[in-house]
Amino acid sequence: MSQRGLFITLEGGEGAGKSTAMAFIMRRLQEANVDLVCTREPGGTQLGEQLRETLLAPSDTEIDPTAELLMMFAARAQHLAECILPALQRGKWVLCDRFTDATYAYQGAGRQMGDEPVAVLEELVQGELRPDVTLLLDVPADVGIARARGRGALDRFELEDHAFFERVRQSYLARAKRSSGRYQIIDASAPLPDVEQALQALVNDLIACPPLVEV
Amino acid sequence: MSQRGLFITLEGGEGAGKSTAMAFIMRRLQEANVDLVCTREPGGTQLGEQLRETLLAPSDTEIDPTAELLMMFAARAQHLAECILPALQRGKWVLCDRFTDATYAYQGAGRQMGDEPVAVLEELVQGELRPDVTLLLDVPADVGIARARGRGALDRFELEDHAFFERVRQSYLARAKRSSGRYQIIDASAPLPDVEQALQALVNDLIACPPLVEV
Ligand SMILES: Nc1ncnc2c1ncn2[C@@H]1O[C@H](COP(=O)(O)OP(=O)(O)OP(=O)(O)O)[C@@H](O)[C@H]1O
Ligand SMILES: Nc1ncnc2c1ncn2[C@@H]1O[C@H](COP(=O)(O)OP(=O)(O)OP(=O)(O)O)[C@@H](O)[C@H]1O
Ligand SMILES: [Mg+2]
Ligand SMILES: [Mg+2]
Repeated sequence: MSQRGLFITLEGGEGAGKSTAMAFIMRRLQEANVDLVCTREPGGTQLGEQLRETLLAPSDTEIDPTAELLMMFAARAQHLAECILPALQRGKWVLCDRFTDATYAYQGAGRQMGDEPVAVLEELVQGELRPDVTLLLDVPADVGIARARGRGALDRFELEDHAFFERVRQSYLARAKRSSGRYQIIDASAPLPDVEQALQALVNDLIACPPLVEV
Repeated sequence: MSQRGLFITLEGGEGAGKSTAMAFIMRRLQEANVDLVCTREPGGTQLGEQLRETLLAPSDTEIDPTAELLMMFAARAQHLAECILPALQRGKWVLCDRFTDATYAYQGAGRQMGDEPVAVLEELVQGELRPDVTLLLDVPADVGIARARGRGALDRFELEDHAFFERVRQSYLARAKRSSGRYQIIDASAPLPDVEQALQALVNDLIACPPLVEV
């Protein structure tokens, strides 16, 4: 019975503060000498970053929602095979900016495809693998979008309307609330020092007593 | 009860003569004033051709087989939404160089993923839609590969070994043999004039009495 590394994901709508939180957690874990891989979705591999570019670039021709969903999982399959699984198997911790919860939120709820096709692909691509810990940065849709706008040009998702982002937020919250213990909901509308304090507490807990995960 | 156009696919291993047959059939159908769309997979749309390039380019880093399978179906979903379904619904005939039978042959059998994941995605992406007529150009693997080599630089699939292409051929034949009536197996090892004669006979039949297809 050997042990694999911990798989931690960061989730939340546009501009919730995932990338900011990622950088903060990375520093804290590195200070604690955790052997860590930081990555993101869609992306994390050469193929995945190529798919990401296609998925996020605003374009004249619409991408079919099923094609979008399949490209998300294609990037994920490559990411798992090439990066995440080898790292976890070597005992490294993996910290990932977005994972399959984002697909439920954006394609399942945002694009209104429903959870079922996402669940079918989750099973096909991941088998039993799920993140061990998911930090959900929750923020009202408009607050997040305003933050994202402040950062510059908008991507293909950021161009969606308010109702889309509201569906994304509610999907994230519903999954977190009906799930077992893996989600931690963080109030990301709070000022950054408060968010960081919450993150610090969670990181301290993880380091002091990481959930046991078997290979 | 309205009627849609006929959906015809061309299948077979590397260098079997699909593209050659496509050009021949296209001329014959156009002479018969059939309103026709000719297309190919992976590809047929801007997004699909982009994915095709990634899928076929020889590369230093391996593409995970599940990622490959998902990208094939992503291209297919876009192709159906943007090109094939609208054409069929307007009563046009669609002639397509490779379709889902190729995914069973290459990813299911060639890559040894089995039929099941292909069937799951076929259902997700196509629902009930299947080609009405599939022309399988059958040729011994080595003959096809020799023809493809004669044409120039090899793509990522053409670089596979003999056993891979043998699995591809046997998968095509097995599907054709156990299926209902949609497959026509053509001996593509015969000289081109003989192949063209066989194609001409099939095209004559299709024009004289096309299978009835309802929307
Ligand atoms: N708690 C906070 N309060 C105010 N601003 C914040 C807070 N957290 C992050 N920001 C700012 O909001 C913007 C978006 O943050 P960040 O890029 O981390 O979000 P994100 O969730 O990664 O966005 P995306 O979904 O676009 O990747 C940045 O300019 C960041 O500095
Ligand atoms: N019956 C035949 N006899 C001999 N040569 C043929 C025959 N049919 C096609 N060829 C030649 O074989 C080569 C491959 O044919 P073609 O490109 O049509 O095959 P293909 O099935 O489309 O290949 P690919 O799988 O690479 O797309 C071409 O040079 C073509 O002229
Ligand atoms: Mg970010
Ligand atoms: Mg060809």
